Amino acid sequence: MTYSLRDFGSYTVGGRLVTVSGRPRREVSFTPSTRYMHDPNGTFAAEAAYVQYFVPERRRDRPPVVLLHGGGMTGSIWESTPDGRKGWLHHLLDRGLEVHVVDNVERGRAGWIPGLWPGEPVMRSLEEAWTLFRFGDTAGFDTRLAFPGQRFPVDCLEAFARGFVPRWTSTTDAQVTAFLALLERLGTASIVCHSQGGEIALRALAAAPARVAAVVAIEPSGTPVLPGSEALPPIRLLYGDYLSVDPIWEALLRGWTALAERHADVSLLDLSDAFPGTSHMAMLDRGTEAVAALVADAML
Amino acid sequence: MTYSLRDFGSYTVGGRLVTVSGRPRREVSFTPSTRYMHDPNGTFAAEAAYVQYFVPERRRDRPPVVLLHGGGMTGSIWESTPDGRKGWLHHLLDRGLEVHVVDNVERGRAGWIPGLWPGEPVMRSLEEAWTLFRFGDTAGFDTRLAFPGQRFPVDCLEAFARGFVPRWTSTTDAQVTAFLALLERLGTASIVCHSQGGEIALRALAAAPARVAAVVAIEPSGTPVLPGSEALPPIRLLYGDYLSVDPIWEALLRGWTALAERHADVSLLDLSDAFPGTSHMAMLDRGTEAVAALVADAML
Repeated sequence: MTYSLRDFGSYTVGGRLVTVSGRPRREVSFTPSTRYMHDPNGTFAAEAAYVQYFVPERRRDRPPVVLLHGGGMTGSIWESTPDGRKGWLHHLLDRGLEVHVVDNVERGRAGWIPGLWPGEPVMRSLEEAWTLFRFGDTAGFDTRLAFPGQRFPVDCLEAFARGFVPRWTSTTDAQVTAFLALLERLGTASIVCHSQGGEIALRALAAAPARVAAVVAIEPSGTPVLPGSEALPPIRLLYGDYLSVDPIWEALLRGWTALAERHADVSLLDLSDAFPGTSHMAMLDRGTEAVAALVADAML
Repeated sequence: MTYSLRDFGSYTVGGRLVTVSGRPRREVSFTPSTRYMHDPNGTFAAEAAYVQYFVPERRRDRPPVVLLHGGGMTGSIWESTPDGRKGWLHHLLDRGLEVHVVDNVERGRAGWIPGLWPGEPVMRSLEEAWTLFRFGDTAGFDTRLAFPGQRFPVDCLEAFARGFVPRWTSTTDAQVTAFLALLERLGTASIVCHSQGGEIALRALAAAPARVAAVVAIEPSGTPVLPGSEALPPIRLLYGDYLSVDPIWEALLRGWTALAERHADVSLLDLSDAFPGTSHMAMLDRGTEAVAALVADAML
């Protein structure tokens, strides 16, 4: 098929300048032939988000859709699956939606500043992804013996893990701020968010509900308090299968359920009803095209 | 205008699995409601490159073009300029070329592994970029008083710097290895490379000259020894204006000149003849569309 795009490209949004001083200069050798005295002091552009956008030629008159990745990942999870199928970016474009793919603060092309944030960055191992994302149990890791009916393409676990990036746990506020700057730039947007990105997006929604037309949150890692007095856009919380394998997921399910009970605008969709075997990575699972169609419906 | 693409998406290439053990587990709180014991040990996917590709609908029967960024940057420098003009990615697609944009090892969406490589990562300040990339002299930084005739959009220096990422100086070999894996995947490719990416690409060319159809190297940061006994593809070294402002550039110019004297397949093009005021960031300068046309000509 052909993708006819009216426009595509990238931009950065948000962020601030930080000044560093008092660090010693040091000789740096970037290449065998290029040595120079590097000054680690000065002004640095920090805490912006990187955004890549695609506008279909046959664009529907609907708000742009922002895709926000989860923790330890980048916008690449929306592009292509580890086994080479099309990502949700493509499926949403096919439906005439303008799409903006985010690398949030300190992830991927947004860059990071050594020494700026407290604490050590966390990097996820293949083993942790295997169990935490509910692909299979610990004993099944070595042989890639997944849970029965598993939709995630576990034979491509290494290719999936090549997309992992480190994350700080102290940058959530900065990520919310940059994401709000993106919403302000867009005016109004619909949001598709995943895991930690779900918590970022819901916090931004709480701060600026009028800027959000619709939300699809796939297994958000938390459920911030949403304003009860204002009209909220429709918020769909989607979750997958195997939640009973770890108390962390059962606790999150209680939080999602409670949020839906508090807000009439929040609805829950258990993907395991129609798509048994759905993992934490619903956008990469086999058969995800049907889930993407549901998501696009929510944006139209 | 409309961009008609036959295909686009992303993939990862190269890399290896590394195993970490012996580090203490620690409680991590990703969100206020989600705490768990993080195990920093295990298996990690390291040193792959991330590649985003675009295939124009009216694709010419020419090798795909690989765009390789310089040090401390990512593939985003080829997409859009800091002042919002189209990048070389667009200009090459417009000419019917298939384009693959790389984030090389430990840059951008390729991700990085804490503690894996020796030494501290280097992050470039706005001040260092201002002088090293030949936008202006130190005294002009605060007021953005650029060199006369400067083509770089210096009023967008902060937006430019938002695209900076840290870099290790100990990952060059891993970058060459991943880039070679990309060339092997593509079979044969033409290469457009910049600064440190120029050195990576020329080292890969020296290792696998049969895989490269043509090279345009913009101010490569070094000039590796190329094989003298084999046929080389045409290699064009492009450089900009103001080289006399810093001995580092004068030394590189001597290296480029010597390389062209040793190899009949290497030609030099001083962009300041036709485009005075060209900075180190020739792909972002004002009027870069004409330089992109020269580059596309070399790929066709």
